[in-house]
Amino acid sequence: MPLGIAVNIYFAGSIRGEAPDRAWFKTLIGHIGRHGRVLTEHSFGYSPQDEARFDDQWIYETDMGWLREADVLVAEVTAPSFGVGYEIAKAEEWGKPVLLLYRLRDGRKPSAMLHGNRVLQMVKFTDEGEALDAVDRFLGQLTGEARGA
Amino acid sequence: MPLGIAVNIYFAGSIRGEAPDRAWFKTLIGHIGRHGRVLTEHSFGYSPQDEARFDDQWIYETDMGWLREADVLVAEVTAPSFGVGYEIAKAEEWGKPVLLLYRLRDGRKPSAMLHGNRVLQMVKFTDEGEALDAVDRFLGQLTGEARGA
Repeated sequence: MPLGIAVNIYFAGSIRGEAPDRAWFKTLIGHIGRHGRVLTEHSFGYSPQDEARFDDQWIYETDMGWLREADVLVAEVTAPSFGVGYEIAKAEEWGKPVLLLYRLRDGRKPSAMLHGNRVLQMVKFTDEGEALDAVDRFLGQLTGEARGA
Repeated sequence: MPLGIAVNIYFAGSIRGEAPDRAWFKTLIGHIGRHGRVLTEHSFGYSPQDEARFDDQWIYETDMGWLREADVLVAEVTAPSFGVGYEIAKAEEWGKPVLLLYRLRDGRKPSAMLHGNRVLQMVKFTDEGEALDAVDRFLGQLTGEARGA
């Protein structure tokens, strides 16, 4: 990334999939936003009722446009979602760095297709602070490299 | 597909994602199997406890090998799953025909990323018979074409 150009970050997380932790997503998006522009921020600000009114083809095309534009993907992969799995595959196909954040829970395991793919980096956390630190390391390294650090 | 060669079908559905309807998957896999070889059939025969013991890298690599080998992907996309979303993107990337089956339910909507992608064909069903008929049309057309019909 050229010096002085903001990093474009695609944040992905469940919307219509298994019920997401909306308060945690808001904290996470705010934290990620310290490192660059979160292209998908507004997607997580709608009520489920309002979100359901959008045209699906418009959502697909807008999200794919943002993902192409993004320098990096950060995905919260606790609540299962088809769209997030799809976006991770696209980011991998397009050679974009990917960070996956998974909250450890009794009786559940992370997706084998994500956890077993050695190209992807998954951070498993118990405390939210661990996930936020992983975001700082991942994005700090990218933006630090852009500054020649 | 050359005449006389069995069609290889990759069936995808939630395993560790949102709780799948295992009885329905079993019916569906049996029906799909009338049209060819279901490469992933055994993946849906394990108890959740046994499945959780497999090595995730082995699962990822085995499934990706089967998907490469498959002529076609049939995915049940009712219960959200990262792996299924990932596999759909890979099948699309590799130019394999894809059929998505979604059970209509009150208060839920299909994934916008799947439903809004015009390359993918999604059949929304209420009665299971409608989904089985869609499978017959989709796979019958492929195998019929292979026979020069």
